[in-house]
Amino acid sequence: MPKIVDHDVRREEIAQALWRVVRRDGVRAASVRTVAAEAGWSPGAVRYYFPDQEGLLSFAMDLVARRVGDRISAVEVEGSAMTIALRYLEEALPLDAERQAEFDVWLAFMAQAQAESGAGGLHGHVDAVHDGLRQLCESLLQSLSEAGGLREGLDLRREAELLHALIDGLALHSAIQPGRTTPARIRQLLRHHLETLLA
Amino acid sequence: MPKIVDHDVRREEIAQALWRVVRRDGVRAASVRTVAAEAGWSPGAVRYYFPDQEGLLSFAMDLVARRVGDRISAVEVEGSAMTIALRYLEEALPLDAERQAEFDVWLAFMAQAQAESGAGGLHGHVDAVHDGLRQLCESLLQSLSEAGGLREGLDLRREAELLHALIDGLALHSAIQPGRTTPARIRQLLRHHLETLLA
Repeated sequence: MPKIVDHDVRREEIAQALWRVVRRDGVRAASVRTVAAEAGWSPGAVRYYFPDQEGLLSFAMDLVARRVGDRISAVEVEGSAMTIALRYLEEALPLDAERQAEFDVWLAFMAQAQAESGAGGLHGHVDAVHDGLRQLCESLLQSLSEAGGLREGLDLRREAELLHALIDGLALHSAIQPGRTTPARIRQLLRHHLETLLA
Repeated sequence: MPKIVDHDVRREEIAQALWRVVRRDGVRAASVRTVAAEAGWSPGAVRYYFPDQEGLLSFAMDLVARRVGDRISAVEVEGSAMTIALRYLEEALPLDAERQAEFDVWLAFMAQAQAESGAGGLHGHVDAVHDGLRQLCESLLQSLSEAGGLREGLDLRREAELLHALIDGLALHSAIQPGRTTPARIRQLLRHHLETLLA
């Protein structure tokens, strides 16, 4: 009988090995060879799924996007529009070890995408994650507005851009100085910012 | 007669070569060997000043800090406290090609410092730049407050943290999507944010 390979399971195994390499040694250490070694596979077996490093790195970036997206889809929360908005935004912020690792990966990809000249390659993946978070900010502010919670005359597009920049800035600061920009402090600052928008 | 070497001039030559390598090939491409080749020197001559890559990278980070610091010291501006505050903050934001390159370097160092486990090394330099920008935010808000321009009851420490996160978030967004987060848009968003703090 031929051996039956579940390709989804194998891709998931590669994903896990890749995640471990990136967290431990940084994103540039992730190659077909190092990920194969980590997974206990031959390089050829990994190459069957990801022919080159760029394919592998894009896959890792997609992994981060999928994790964040899955968590946001799974949010179940009741309460004021403010409570709900904060709860969603928290899923995109590095408030625990797992989410800090995701942000580190995102940052490493971003820096690597910046270092590559021209568009394409990793840029498309960075753009997609970036656009997704901005849209989340827009739709949360829209919900707050429809719930009648926001001040009159706010330019929601502008406020979404500011909120998005603030979130990424806080995430960056928590990566730089985790002892100062703690999860508790991020929550306080974010709540204070949203409160300035309230009616 | 012995050859007289001006060490400051030679360090500046290394700085310039290092800057070109980092901008062109990314921060991880900067080594004693590649910088020596770029400067047209022998590796040994570079090593006389910077024995290893870490020394070289720290020097590059200091270069960025020095450039920003020099520009901030040189700011001469008259006008309202708001005009003055915006003018200072602009020097720390990637609003032209030169400042975008500085931010790219800072980002690359930051990502590399994150990838290194433990403290020390590049972390100290990242911290110093980070603290410098937060202190700038604090002192600008303090000046606005003393000029009587700010709303009563603001927590200036909290507002400085928010302003600092906003500035770094906007800088990050302009690196990710320069066509969307343009210099003009950054100025608008920053001005709007500061206006929400006014009396």
